[in-house]
Amino acid sequence: MKAEIIAIGTELLLGQIVNTNAQFLAQECAALGIDIYYQTVVGDNASRLLDSFKLAASRADVVICTGGLGPTQDDLTKDVLSDYIGQALFIHQPSMDTITKLFQNRETPMVETNARQALLFENSDPLQNDVGLAVGAALTFEGTHFIVLPGPPKEMKPMFTRHATPWLKAVMTDEVPLYSKMLKFAGIGESSLEHELIDMIDAQTDPTIAPYAKEAEVTIRLTTRAHTPEEGEPKLASTEAEIRKRLGQHLYAVKDVPIEHVVLELLKEKNQTLSVAESCSGGLLSDLLTTEPGSSEVFKGGVVCYSNALKHQLLDIPMDMLEGPGAPGAISEETALLLAENLQKITGTDYALSITGVAGPSLSEGKPIGLVYIGLVGKESIRITKKLQISGTRDSIKWRSSKDALYQLWKQLINN
Amino acid sequence: MKAEIIAIGTELLLGQIVNTNAQFLAQECAALGIDIYYQTVVGDNASRLLDSFKLAASRADVVICTGGLGPTQDDLTKDVLSDYIGQALFIHQPSMDTITKLFQNRETPMVETNARQALLFENSDPLQNDVGLAVGAALTFEGTHFIVLPGPPKEMKPMFTRHATPWLKAVMTDEVPLYSKMLKFAGIGESSLEHELIDMIDAQTDPTIAPYAKEAEVTIRLTTRAHTPEEGEPKLASTEAEIRKRLGQHLYAVKDVPIEHVVLELLKEKNQTLSVAESCSGGLLSDLLTTEPGSSEVFKGGVVCYSNALKHQLLDIPMDMLEGPGAPGAISEETALLLAENLQKITGTDYALSITGVAGPSLSEGKPIGLVYIGLVGKESIRITKKLQISGTRDSIKWRSSKDALYQLWKQLINN
Repeated sequence: MKAEIIAIGTELLLGQIVNTNAQFLAQECAALGIDIYYQTVVGDNASRLLDSFKLAASRADVVICTGGLGPTQDDLTKDVLSDYIGQALFIHQPSMDTITKLFQNRETPMVETNARQALLFENSDPLQNDVGLAVGAALTFEGTHFIVLPGPPKEMKPMFTRHATPWLKAVMTDEVPLYSKMLKFAGIGESSLEHELIDMIDAQTDPTIAPYAKEAEVTIRLTTRAHTPEEGEPKLASTEAEIRKRLGQHLYAVKDVPIEHVVLELLKEKNQTLSVAESCSGGLLSDLLTTEPGSSEVFKGGVVCYSNALKHQLLDIPMDMLEGPGAPGAISEETALLLAENLQKITGTDYALSITGVAGPSLSEGKPIGLVYIGLVGKESIRITKKLQISGTRDSIKWRSSKDALYQLWKQLINN
Repeated sequence: MKAEIIAIGTELLLGQIVNTNAQFLAQECAALGIDIYYQTVVGDNASRLLDSFKLAASRADVVICTGGLGPTQDDLTKDVLSDYIGQALFIHQPSMDTITKLFQNRETPMVETNARQALLFENSDPLQNDVGLAVGAALTFEGTHFIVLPGPPKEMKPMFTRHATPWLKAVMTDEVPLYSKMLKFAGIGESSLEHELIDMIDAQTDPTIAPYAKEAEVTIRLTTRAHTPEEGEPKLASTEAEIRKRLGQHLYAVKDVPIEHVVLELLKEKNQTLSVAESCSGGLLSDLLTTEPGSSEVFKGGVVCYSNALKHQLLDIPMDMLEGPGAPGAISEETALLLAENLQKITGTDYALSITGVAGPSLSEGKPIGLVYIGLVGKESIRITKKLQISGTRDSIKWRSSKDALYQLWKQLINN
């Protein structure tokens, strides 16, 4: 089956935003075994949008559209598609009820144009928006399937995976679908991982082995063709076993979840708790942990001890350990350990993690940008420190130090 | 003048990389006053690539292609364009000399296929590659200008700005470039903002008024045509003045910066400091502040007091205020204020901000998801609380509460 992606929005044509939706949808289609031959971006213009629909329908079995479902006059996707397929739009009452309720909860008056976001085509299936206001749609017109999704990635992604994917699978017939498995790695960079597997990557046929890196984690996707997991798993087994043999100590999950998810699950299983003290990561580690729903069961919080004064005021680090001649300084193994120890004393959590380092753009204590110490303290006399030298931007130093701290805790949790 | 961007590469269609080249080129074209109506992505396939060239040439004055200039059999851009325009390819000797020299410097033998990267069309201008091996090309065929660029952004960007831009300017006659100004708003949602300006948006001609929303901030771009800022500013002045009259209390910047940037700059100017206490935002506010280089001058850190125990242990909130019958609870105006007051006492910063609320997915203290209280305490008896009811996901509640806390502080800073 062939698909095309049409991303709609003048902000894309002006370069105000980057088209991450196309990448996400391309990956999802690849995983479903749907081939993409073209991606198009078109602005908020009715005649050019109509031309794009016509062209895509002439070339593909599936046309996936994102954007242009908002409440304003600029949002034309449903109007133009309605003209093209000759189906009127009507207010979808369940979606309208959701929108009305949301505005009531906000205690703000609903602007009339918001009703536009509840519009659906006569003969289409609604794609529920679990996150925002605009309802999506799936329909078939003259043999071409259209999937209509909102533009904001936060709304588009769950709508596609939860609601559009089952719809697409139902219309895909006679295809041997792709069967994929994600292996997720932490505590190792993409090039080191590739170096370990280069002979396997070079010789790959079936399954295919595709490594990629994102936000300080590396993923390998193994892919073969199979109708069921029972048929697919044996075809992946020997490749996965060989990868585990070489890199098992870094493999933290066999599905696409971040390491914070796995760490939180392990803590819940063991009924153990965590607090964190962050200097150079500046709150990112806490932010990652609290992004997971239900994290409050085991993650209790912590301190963003960005300045030396706060390290002293909130975590009792002696000032003469942080500053002055001969002091180890804030960026040191000693301080990393004491930050975690003192935090654990105050909070009483089973584990305490600490991060202290130089995120740049300038040196700190004369120490190089990217030098980071991680401290991990746990009950039963667990006292671990880890020194890292990270290259990259301020942002990547924050990300990699946060992820590596989680990796250190993960190693403890699976071994104890 | 109208242009189209064609990005060439199967890795884009598979979603292995995101098409940042299109965003860069779109921004550059907007700055040059070149309108982009379409962007296309096509794979490494000769017939589909040819179709894309034909279609783009039928619609646009300029076709900008990126990718497919490498040494391998997959790299087809020059071959296909050569067929289309009926001009043979030849080895461009200066480019060939550069490639040969680079391999000599690397002390590695040159693979024969690398000569493909020195190919040029008979009647084209070379676009020098200052970073990599493949030479680019600029040419005009039947009234359409073609710009041929490499795919790697590190090579493409300097080639476009240093070599393709002067070439394009030379062929652009009688064009007045676009002049744009960004107005950034906080503390107001996209639909409320549009509601306030709907008559202006509906009647817009020159300048155009384009609102859009991202990460809990709203931006308006005003655009007109002008050769210089001196010519452009007066054409925007009355529109900007009217927007300021209606929404001035939300307008925090006239360039594309996040509100945390402006807040940190104001604190630096005033030589004042900040600490934050985060419950439901879970570290995001600290993370946003520390993402800005140089934030450590004024942002001292704070507490992620996710659990009630930590609110008590680190910020001395009485347990009988947080729990038990008749207690206001963690999610209350009283607790928001006391979190900020106690944090300020401990850290001695000029300002302390607090956020406490229900991020979901379940209710807390029987209070609704999205209910958030913000506390702001400053020297000179500043004691402010703000109640919000935010709709959306856990993630959007974290974002909007963090941005609104910054908005509360911004209002104080500009008025004091």
